[in-house]
Amino acid sequence: IGDRAKQTPKGEWIMGGDWDETKWTPAKLPTKELIDPVTPETPVFVNRYDGHMSLANSVALQLAGVTAKTPGPLGGVIVRDAQGNPTGALKDAAQDLVNKVIPPLTHEQRVKAVKRALAHAASLGVTSVQNMDPDYEDIAVYSELLQRGELTTRIYAAPLITQVDDQTKIGIRHAFGGPFLRIGALKAFADGSLGSATAYFFQPFEDQPNNHGILSDEMHPVSLMRDRMMKADAAGLQLCTHAIGDQAISMILDIYSEITKSHGAADRRFRIEHAQHMAAKDFDRFAQLHVIASVQPYHAIDDGRWAEARIGHDRASRTYAFRTFLNHGMRLALGTDWDVAALNPMLTVYAAVTRATLDGKNPNGWFPEQKLTVPETIEAYTMGSAYAEFQENEKGSITAGKLADMVLLSDDIFSIPPEKIRDVKVLKTIVGGKIVWDAAEQK
Amino acid sequence: IGDRAKQTPKGEWIMGGDWDETKWTPAKLPTKELIDPVTPETPVFVNRYDGHMSLANSVALQLAGVTAKTPGPLGGVIVRDAQGNPTGALKDAAQDLVNKVIPPLTHEQRVKAVKRALAHAASLGVTSVQNMDPDYEDIAVYSELLQRGELTTRIYAAPLITQVDDQTKIGIRHAFGGPFLRIGALKAFADGSLGSATAYFFQPFEDQPNNHGILSDEMHPVSLMRDRMMKADAAGLQLCTHAIGDQAISMILDIYSEITKSHGAADRRFRIEHAQHMAAKDFDRFAQLHVIASVQPYHAIDDGRWAEARIGHDRASRTYAFRTFLNHGMRLALGTDWDVAALNPMLTVYAAVTRATLDGKNPNGWFPEQKLTVPETIEAYTMGSAYAEFQENEKGSITAGKLADMVLLSDDIFSIPPEKIRDVKVLKTIVGGKIVWDAAEQK
Repeated sequence: IGDRAKQTPKGEWIMGGDWDETKWTPAKLPTKELIDPVTPETPVFVNRYDGHMSLANSVALQLAGVTAKTPGPLGGVIVRDAQGNPTGALKDAAQDLVNKVIPPLTHEQRVKAVKRALAHAASLGVTSVQNMDPDYEDIAVYSELLQRGELTTRIYAAPLITQVDDQTKIGIRHAFGGPFLRIGALKAFADGSLGSATAYFFQPFEDQPNNHGILSDEMHPVSLMRDRMMKADAAGLQLCTHAIGDQAISMILDIYSEITKSHGAADRRFRIEHAQHMAAKDFDRFAQLHVIASVQPYHAIDDGRWAEARIGHDRASRTYAFRTFLNHGMRLALGTDWDVAALNPMLTVYAAVTRATLDGKNPNGWFPEQKLTVPETIEAYTMGSAYAEFQENEKGSITAGKLADMVLLSDDIFSIPPEKIRDVKVLKTIVGGKIVWDAAEQK
Repeated sequence: IGDRAKQTPKGEWIMGGDWDETKWTPAKLPTKELIDPVTPETPVFVNRYDGHMSLANSVALQLAGVTAKTPGPLGGVIVRDAQGNPTGALKDAAQDLVNKVIPPLTHEQRVKAVKRALAHAASLGVTSVQNMDPDYEDIAVYSELLQRGELTTRIYAAPLITQVDDQTKIGIRHAFGGPFLRIGALKAFADGSLGSATAYFFQPFEDQPNNHGILSDEMHPVSLMRDRMMKADAAGLQLCTHAIGDQAISMILDIYSEITKSHGAADRRFRIEHAQHMAAKDFDRFAQLHVIASVQPYHAIDDGRWAEARIGHDRASRTYAFRTFLNHGMRLALGTDWDVAALNPMLTVYAAVTRATLDGKNPNGWFPEQKLTVPETIEAYTMGSAYAEFQENEKGSITAGKLADMVLLSDDIFSIPPEKIRDVKVLKTIVGGKIVWDAAEQK
C-alpha cells in the first residue's frame, strides 16, 4: 500500500485489497495504524475478500467524517478500540459511510473493467453469469457492449432490492430481455458474512460469546424488507436473497412463506444466496417453498479451515450442506461468488466433489458426508443454475435447439481422480456457436 | 350516448367514441349541448377518432373543474363559445384536464383489452406492432402474457418521452428485450393533428386564417424537449416523434440535427411519426439525418377528402409525400396508427398504391404522383418497419434464420388489380412458426 501510495496522483483513492486476516500471523483484524504512516495524504479503503468488511486509513475516515462520536449504523459495525476510537475496520453497512465519499467510476473505467471481466470469464469457460447487485451504470455498459456485439458472456443482472421501484414501475418481469442480457431480478441482503462475524445466527459465535451477528440495513425493520419483497413479487420480479446465518435464512424463509400465502402459487423461483448455515428445522420448509439454494462450494474448502472454531461442530455439520439439500429434494444452483472467490469453475467442481480444505487438513473432505458426485455437481452447475434464472429451456445442457454454449476441457472430469479436477484447463470456450476463447491462440 | 347512459352504472364514465365531424352534416364540431339532455348524471368524454380532441358533457366538465375561468393549457385548447364558456370540445393537452379525473383501468380490464387486441391483430395478419405511448401498466400486461406464452403479436413499446428518466436510469438501450417484447424507445409529441387544426404549420390554415396550429405541451419550452431528447439519445434510447405540421417537423429535425452534432455519428434511427406535411426545404436534411419517415398511408385516403380545403394546393402537394420521400433516398416504415385508423394492413397497402380517397372523388389517386407500387409498399411495410425497430436481421422478410412470421392471403396482391387489394382476406397468420389465426376455423 505504501508503494502504491507513491504512484497515486493526489486526490485518488487506493482501493481493492481482498485481504484475509485468517491467512496472517497473528490472525487479527488490521487497523489503520498499519497503513497510516505510509499513506499520509492518500485516502485508502481496502476490502476484506468477502466484501463484508473494509479497512479505512485516517485520511479516508476524515473525508467520511467518521469519528469516535459517529454512531454505528443499523446493519453495520464501526470496529473501535478500548477508548471507542474507530480502528479503521468497518463492517457491512458501516462501509457505506466511506463508500459514499469515494468518487464514482467513470463510464470509461466501467467499460474497461467489464471488458476485462468478459475476457477473464471467457478464458475460464464461463459462458453465463448472474450478476448480483450491479450498479445501473454497469447495466448500461452491458447494454452498450450487447449492441456492439461484444458481450461474450450472458448476463442476468439483479439490482439491489432497495431499488425495487425502478423495475416494477416500467412493467417488466423476471428474466426480461434477450439471450445475452436479462434483468427482472432483485438482490437482497439479510445479513453479513461468517468471516466478518456478521452472519446472523440464533446462537452466539463460539469465539465471540457476545455476538450472534447482525441483520443487514435492509432488514431494519424487517417489515421494510417484507414490503419490498411483496411489491417485487406482485410485479413478477425474482428475489435473490443473501442469507448466511441460520437465523437470517429462517427469517427470509418466513417472508417467502408469507409472500406465497399472500399472492398464491406461482412459478416464482425464490432464491437464497449462500444458504450457508442451515437450522435443522428449516430444510423441510426450504424444500416445500421450492426455494433454490444458490451455493458456492469453493467457500466450503476456504471457510472450512476455521469455520468450526467460530460456530462449533453441530452448526458446522449443517454448513454448506449440499448433500442434505439434495436429500430434501431441494434444487441447487452453483456459482463462484466472484470476486469474493475465484471465477474458475473447475475450483467449484473440485470443492463440491472433494471438500478438501485449502489448508490440506481434510484430504478426505471436511464433513465428507456432504460431498457431491461429479455428475451431481455438473447437473447443479448447468441445469440447476439455468433453472435458477428461468432459462432451463434455453441453456444448461448441450441439446439441439438450445443455445450453443460449450466448453472443451483438457481432461474428462467424469473419469479423472477428483483431486485432479482443479488442474483441468479450458481449451476452447464457445458461446452461441462462436469460439470466444481458444487456448491454442494464447502465447 | 343516451341509450348507453341508461345502462351505465352510477359513477361510471362513457368513453370511446371515435367521432369524426367531417362525416356529419353540417360538418361542425360537436358541443356538450348535444348530449347533456340525455346524460344528466353520467360523465361523458368521447374522443375524436384522431385522439387530438374530445368532447366532454357538463357532468364531466364539472368533475374536472373546467369553467369559463379555466385558462387554456400550454399545448392545448379549450374550445369556447362567444361568451367564453367551454363548449365541451377540448383539444390536445386540454384533454388532460378531464383525463386526470377519470378512474384508471383496472389490471383485469387491461388484460381483457390486450387479449382482444391480440386476437384482432392475429385475425388481420398483424404479426408485429410498435406500441406508441403505452402506460407502464400496459407493458406489465404484455410481460405477464409473454410469460404465460400468450403473446401472439410481437410488441415494441415506446413510452412517452416525459418518462425518459425511467428507462435511462436502469441502463437499457433501444430495442432491449426478446423477440416478443422490447422496450427502449420513447414516443414524443411535437404538435397536434390536421383534423383538429392543431398541427403546427409555418403558415395559417386556409379555413382558419388566425390559426397555424399549436405545439404540444412537451414543446413548451422547446428546450425542455431538446433536453429530454439529448438525455434519451445519450443513453441509447430510440426517439419516435409525432410531427404533422411542416413547422413541427422542421423543429424536430432541428433538434435531431443538434443531437447528432453534439453526440456524434451513431446508428440511432431517429423516427418522425406521420411526417405528414413536409416543407419543401426539409426533404434533403430529413434524408441526410437518416431519419425514418414512419407513415400511415390510410390517412391519405381519409384526410385527402378535405385536406386541400384546410391547407391549400401547394402544401397538399407535399402531404403524405411517399414518392418524394423515396426519391430523396429516405427510409419509410409503414403502419396503421391503430386505433386512429383501422388495423387492417390491406387498407394500408390499398391506400399507398391507389391514393383513392374514401369519398370516391379521386379514383386515380389524390396527388397520384405520390403513389407507390405494391413491391415498394410491401418493402416499406416489412423490411422498412423492421429496420425502424432495429430488427431487420430478425424479421421483415421470409428468410432462413429469421423469425417465421408469415401470412397466407386469399389473393396474390402483386398481381391483382390494386383496387381489389382492400378486399383481400387473411387465411392464416403464422407467428414464430405457429398458426395463431386460421380463417378455416372461424364460423
